[in-house]
Amino acid sequence: MIRVGIIGGSGYTGSELLRLLVQHPEAEVVVVTSRALEGVLVADVHRHLKGFYNLRFANVDAKTVANQTDVVFLAVPHGAAMGLVPDLVDAVKVIDLSADYRLGAEYEAVYGPHTDPREAVYGLPELHPEVAHARLCANPGCYPTGAILAAAPLVKEGLVDEVIFDSKSGISGAGAAPTETSHYPNLAENIIAYQVTQHRHKAEIVQELGRLGRVAVNFTPHVIPSIRGILTTAHLLLNTMIDGEEIVSLYETFYAKCPFIRFNVPSLKSVRGTNFCDLSLERDNATRRLVVISAIDNMVKGASGQAIQNMNVMFGLDQTTGLWSPALSL
Amino acid sequence: MIRVGIIGGSGYTGSELLRLLVQHPEAEVVVVTSRALEGVLVADVHRHLKGFYNLRFANVDAKTVANQTDVVFLAVPHGAAMGLVPDLVDAVKVIDLSADYRLGAEYEAVYGPHTDPREAVYGLPELHPEVAHARLCANPGCYPTGAILAAAPLVKEGLVDEVIFDSKSGISGAGAAPTETSHYPNLAENIIAYQVTQHRHKAEIVQELGRLGRVAVNFTPHVIPSIRGILTTAHLLLNTMIDGEEIVSLYETFYAKCPFIRFNVPSLKSVRGTNFCDLSLERDNATRRLVVISAIDNMVKGASGQAIQNMNVMFGLDQTTGLWSPALSL
Amino acid sequence: MIRVGIIGGSGYTGSELLRLLVQHPEAEVVVVTSRALEGVLVADVHRHLKGFYNLRFANVDAKTVANQTDVVFLAVPHGAAMGLVPDLVDAVKVIDLSADYRLGAEYEAVYGPHTDPREAVYGLPELHPEVAHARLCANPGCYPTGAILAAAPLVKEGLVDEVIFDSKSGISGAGAAPTETSHYPNLAENIIAYQVTQHRHKAEIVQELGRLGRVAVNFTPHVIPSIRGILTTAHLLLNTMIDGEEIVSLYETFYAKCPFIRFNVPSLKSVRGTNFCDLSLERDNATRRLVVISAIDNMVKGASGQAIQNMNVMFGLDQTTGLWSPALSL
Amino acid sequence: MIRVGIIGGSGYTGSELLRLLVQHPEAEVVVVTSRALEGVLVADVHRHLKGFYNLRFANVDAKTVANQTDVVFLAVPHGAAMGLVPDLVDAVKVIDLSADYRLGAEYEAVYGPHTDPREAVYGLPELHPEVAHARLCANPGCYPTGAILAAAPLVKEGLVDEVIFDSKSGISGAGAAPTETSHYPNLAENIIAYQVTQHRHKAEIVQELGRLGRVAVNFTPHVIPSIRGILTTAHLLLNTMIDGEEIVSLYETFYAKCPFIRFNVPSLKSVRGTNFCDLSLERDNATRRLVVISAIDNMVKGASGQAIQNMNVMFGLDQTTGLWSPALSL
Repeated sequence: MIRVGIIGGSGYTGSELLRLLVQHPEAEVVVVTSRALEGVLVADVHRHLKGFYNLRFANVDAKTVANQTDVVFLAVPHGAAMGLVPDLVDAVKVIDLSADYRLGAEYEAVYGPHTDPREAVYGLPELHPEVAHARLCANPGCYPTGAILAAAPLVKEGLVDEVIFDSKSGISGAGAAPTETSHYPNLAENIIAYQVTQHRHKAEIVQELGRLGRVAVNFTPHVIPSIRGILTTAHLLLNTMIDGEEIVSLYETFYAKCPFIRFNVPSLKSVRGTNFCDLSLERDNATRRLVVISAIDNMVKGASGQAIQNMNVMFGLDQTTGLWSPALSL
Repeated sequence: MIRVGIIGGSGYTGSELLRLLVQHPEAEVVVVTSRALEGVLVADVHRHLKGFYNLRFANVDAKTVANQTDVVFLAVPHGAAMGLVPDLVDAVKVIDLSADYRLGAEYEAVYGPHTDPREAVYGLPELHPEVAHARLCANPGCYPTGAILAAAPLVKEGLVDEVIFDSKSGISGAGAAPTETSHYPNLAENIIAYQVTQHRHKAEIVQELGRLGRVAVNFTPHVIPSIRGILTTAHLLLNTMIDGEEIVSLYETFYAKCPFIRFNVPSLKSVRGTNFCDLSLERDNATRRLVVISAIDNMVKGASGQAIQNMNVMFGLDQTTGLWSPALSL
Repeated sequence: MIRVGIIGGSGYTGSELLRLLVQHPEAEVVVVTSRALEGVLVADVHRHLKGFYNLRFANVDAKTVANQTDVVFLAVPHGAAMGLVPDLVDAVKVIDLSADYRLGAEYEAVYGPHTDPREAVYGLPELHPEVAHARLCANPGCYPTGAILAAAPLVKEGLVDEVIFDSKSGISGAGAAPTETSHYPNLAENIIAYQVTQHRHKAEIVQELGRLGRVAVNFTPHVIPSIRGILTTAHLLLNTMIDGEEIVSLYETFYAKCPFIRFNVPSLKSVRGTNFCDLSLERDNATRRLVVISAIDNMVKGASGQAIQNMNVMFGLDQTTGLWSPALSL
Repeated sequence: MIRVGIIGGSGYTGSELLRLLVQHPEAEVVVVTSRALEGVLVADVHRHLKGFYNLRFANVDAKTVANQTDVVFLAVPHGAAMGLVPDLVDAVKVIDLSADYRLGAEYEAVYGPHTDPREAVYGLPELHPEVAHARLCANPGCYPTGAILAAAPLVKEGLVDEVIFDSKSGISGAGAAPTETSHYPNLAENIIAYQVTQHRHKAEIVQELGRLGRVAVNFTPHVIPSIRGILTTAHLLLNTMIDGEEIVSLYETFYAKCPFIRFNVPSLKSVRGTNFCDLSLERDNATRRLVVISAIDNMVKGASGQAIQNMNVMFGLDQTTGLWSPALSL
C-alpha cells in the first residue's frame, strides 16, 4: 500500500485528490496538511467526504510529511512548491500540482523568481514515458493538457504551421476562493474571455509542442458557466493536403497505448469526474484547417487525476489503477 | 422633472435604480454617491450603462445630496441609513431601501441598536395607500414583498390559521460582493436552505400580516441557481371550507386597483426585469391547504422597482410611470 | 457473480444502472434491452460508458432475459412493468423502478388500471428489512424517498400532526426525452412549481408514513435549474414541545444501522452521484414547527442506486457493496 | 404611427419583436399571425406580455396582412418567406428575419431551391446605408452579425489574411421547440461544438466580408449554457505589423456614426436584451494575431432588434428609436 501525503488539502485540487484516492486500491492517504485548518476533520470541510475519512488536517512541515509517506502531492499555490521540494525529494517521490517545475529556463520570464534549479519530468504520461523513473513530477496545467493532446500527433509529423487554441473552461480551475469572476451573477448566462493573448499556460503549450516540432502557437482561454471541464477547440492550420481519414489513423496510432485517450463525441459530460481526454477530428474541406476538439475534466485529467495517473506510473502500477470509472454524465 | 439622488450607487440596488430610471420620463438622476469610487464614471463600473450616463460617482455628504435633489434613494447597508435620514428628510423626500425603518419597535430585537426613532411608511403601495403622503418611505424587503402579497387577502378575511412561506430566491439578493454562497461551484446545480427558521425578513412578514389579521407565520428561504427572482410557495392552512373560486374572486377584488399584480402562471421569467408580482392559487382538495405562489423580480418589485413605484406615488404620478415594460422572459 | 439484466436500457434510470454497476464487484450486466436501439452498442448511446461496455442493446422478451440472469431491473415506463413481471418473477428476482408495484389497492385511483394483483415489497431498505426476502421489489419514487426519510422517525413516535413537504428537484427525474419543461430557456434561471397539490408521488408518501403513524400529508414539488438532486424541505407541525436535541437523538437512533443516512449540512453537491440521503434538523423556537431537510441524488438514492442497494439486500450482500463512493461535489 | 404586421408570431423572434415593439413610440403591432394558434390571446402564449397586448393570433394570408399594415416582419422558418414576399412587397415594406433573401446566387448551394429571384438589401445597417431605400430587407443571421462587425474594419483595409471565428452562442438561437441540444441535462454544465466546419451562416460571413476585401474565413460555432447572447472570438491573422493603437483608431473611425457599436469589455451581460454590439480588441504581441471579441444579444442585435433598427432606417426614423434601453446586466 502506497502511503500518500497531501500538502495543502483545503483547496479544490486537494479535495479532488482525496475524492479520487478513496477508490484507489493500492494507495492510502495518511496525512493531509493545512495551516489554517489544523485539527479540523477533513470531512467537516469537504462535507461530501463524510464517512470516507476520519483524518484531521495537520499543521506539520514537509520533512514530517516525508517521514510518514511514500509519495507526496503538492496542492499548493504557485511559488510555494519550490520551497517544499528540497525537503521532500530525497526522501519520497513528489508530484507537484503547481506550476513551479513545469517550465525550465522559461519559468522566470512567465512566473517570476525561482529558487530551486532542480529539473522535473513533465507529467503528461501520454508524451513522457520517462515519468516512470521520475522522483519529481511536474503535473501539467489544465489548459495545456487538453491543448497539447489535441495537437501533438500532427505537430510531431511536421504537418502544422500554426495553431489557434480557443479554450472554454469551467470555473473550478480558478479555485475555491470566491472572486468577481466566480460570483454567480457574473458568470451565469455569460462567457468570459480573459488573458486573451497572454495566459501563462501558453508557455507550457509552446514548450511541449516545441519538443515535438515547429509550430506557431496562439492561445485564448474563456470561462463558461460550468463547474468542471475544459473544451478546447484547436484550429490547426495545416501545411499539407492530408485528408481526414489519414489524420484519424495517425492519431489512433499515436495514442494506441493510451487508455485515457478516447475518440468520442466531445462533451464535458462524457468526461465529468474522470481522467479521460476525449478527442474528435474534423477536416475543413474549404480551407487548410483541421479542427480538433478535446474534452477533459479540468480537476481530474487537468489536475488531480493526472497526478494519480503519474503516481501509478512512478510506482509501476497500471496507469488506470483507481481511475477507471465512468463519467457522471448527467 | 424630479431630480433624483442615489446614495450608495455601487451595489446592485443602486445599479438597478440607475437602469430603471433611464426609462423614467419624469425623473432624472443628478447625483450618485460612492465613497470608494469617487470620480469614476458610473458607466465604467456598471458597464451595461455605457451610453446612458455621463455621471461620475461623487463623494459628498447627505446634505449636499439633498441640496441638489427632490428625492433621495438610500441604497446603503442596513444600519447606515439611520445615520443619513436625519440630514435628508426635512429637505427632500426619502426612500430607504435598507431595513432601517421597516420595523417599528421590533427593529432592535432583530437588527440591533437604532439611533433614529422617526417613523416611516412601509412602502408596499398595494397595502399602504398612505405612501402618497410619506416623506420617509421604508422600502420593503424582497422576501416580505412576495410573501405578504401572496397571503394578504385571506389573512385580512380571517380565513387563515397558519402560513408556511417556503421561498426560493435568486442570488442577486445577497449583493454584489462575492461570498461562499455566491461562488459559482457552490450554487450552480444546487439549492441552499439558509436561516431556516430565523431569517430577519420574517419580522416584516409578521408585522404586515399582523396588521391585517391574526395568523401564525413560518418562513424558510432558499437560494437557487438563478440571478434574479423570488418564487414564494405559500402554504396557507385555512380555518374554513371556502372553495377555490371564491378565493380567486376574493383576491381579484382585493387587488382590483393594483396594476402590478397579475394572475398568471407563476414563473420567474414572466417577471424578470419588471415590477410585476404574478400570483396563482390552487386549492388542495384533500386537505385544508391553499397554495398561493407568487413570483417577483427581487431586484425590481423586491427592491429598486418598488422604490420607484413608491416615488411615483409620493409625487402624485401614475404608479406605473417609467415601470411599464414587459419582462425579458428569455 | 450476480448476472444482471436490465429491461429498458435507453433512458436515464437504465443509463444510471449501467454507470453504477461498473463499480460493483459482485454483479455483471449480461443483457440490456431496447426495442428501438436493437443492435446498437450501449456505449454509442451512453457515450460516457465508452470503454466500459461492449454490450449491444438486445430486443428480446422478458423470458429470454430471465433465462440468462439472476436479477432483472425494470427501467420501463409506468404501466409497462406489470406486463413483464409475470414472465420474470418465478425465474429471477425482480426490481421494478417504475411505479407499478409501489401502491397496493391505491394504485388504480392514482395511475389507472392494473393487470397484476401480485404484491411487492416497498424497496426502501431503511424502513423495510423484509426486502431481504423479496422476490419482487418495488423501488420507491424519487420524491417519496427523500420525503419519507425526512419524517419517518417523528411520525413513528406520533409526534407530528401535519407535514408540508416542499420539494425541489433537478430535471433529470423527468427523463431523457426533451419537453417544454426541460427546454433550457424555460428552466434556466427559473424554478417551476407543478402538480402543486396533486402529484402522484403523494400517494406513496401517505402510504408509507401511514404505516408508521397518523399524520396529514401535504406535498408540492418544484423543478429547479439542476440536473440531479432533490432537496426536500419538510415542515413538520409538531403536537408536542419536544426540543431540538431530543429530536436529533431520536433520528440518530432510528437510523443507527443505515449507512446511507448521514447527518450533514444538506446540499445537492454532497450527495451528487451517490446513494446517500443527507439530513439536517432545525427546531423553530417561535412556533410548533420542525424543519427537516433531506438531500438525495434523485437518480441514485431516488432511483438506480437504491435499486442496487435493494439488490444487495436481496442477495445477502452488504448493502453498500458497489455503492460506497464519495460525491462529485464540484 | 407605423402599422406593423408580424407573420409567424408564436416563436422566439416573433415574441421578441412583440416585446421590443411595446417600447416603440412610432410603431404599433396591428396583426400577428399563427396558423396553429388562431384565436388565442398573444398574452396567453407569451405570458410575460400579459397586460401589454390584447391581440389574438390571426390565421390570415399575406395579402390580408399587407392590407392592414405599413411594414411586415417575417418571423417564419427558412424556405417559407420566399412564398410570402411576392404577395407583400408591392404593398408594404418587408423585413425578412429568415435566411431566404440574405444570400444571392449562393443561396441554393447552401439552403436548397429558391423560388423567388428578387434581390434584397442585406440589413446590417452599420455596413449597408442603402437599407434606407429598401422595400425588402434581409435581416442578417445572428452569428454573421457578431462576426462581420468584429472583422469588417480591418478587412476593408486589406490587412487580414485569414480569420478564425470561434463563436459561443446561447441556446435561444435554436428556437422555441425542445430538442436534444436544448434539453437541460444535455446543455447545462456543458458546451457543445456543432457544424464545426460547415455551418450555413458561414456563407453570409464570406459574402459580406468579401464585399469589403479579400480574406479566408473559418467559422466554428458552439452552444453554451446561456439563454441569450453570442460571444464571438475573432482570431484575425494580420499581414502587417500595425500596432494596437492604430487598430483601435481605425475601428473607432469606421464605426463613428454607429450608435449601437460600443467599445466595452465584452460580456453577454452588458448587451442582454439590447441592440448593442460591444467590441474589444487585443493585439497578440508574440504573433501576427489580433483578437477581436464581439458580444451581442442573439435575439436582439442578432434578430428582432436589428429588424426594428432596419425598420427605423427604412422609415426615416432615428435608428435608435424604441431600442435605446440599457441591458438587464444581472
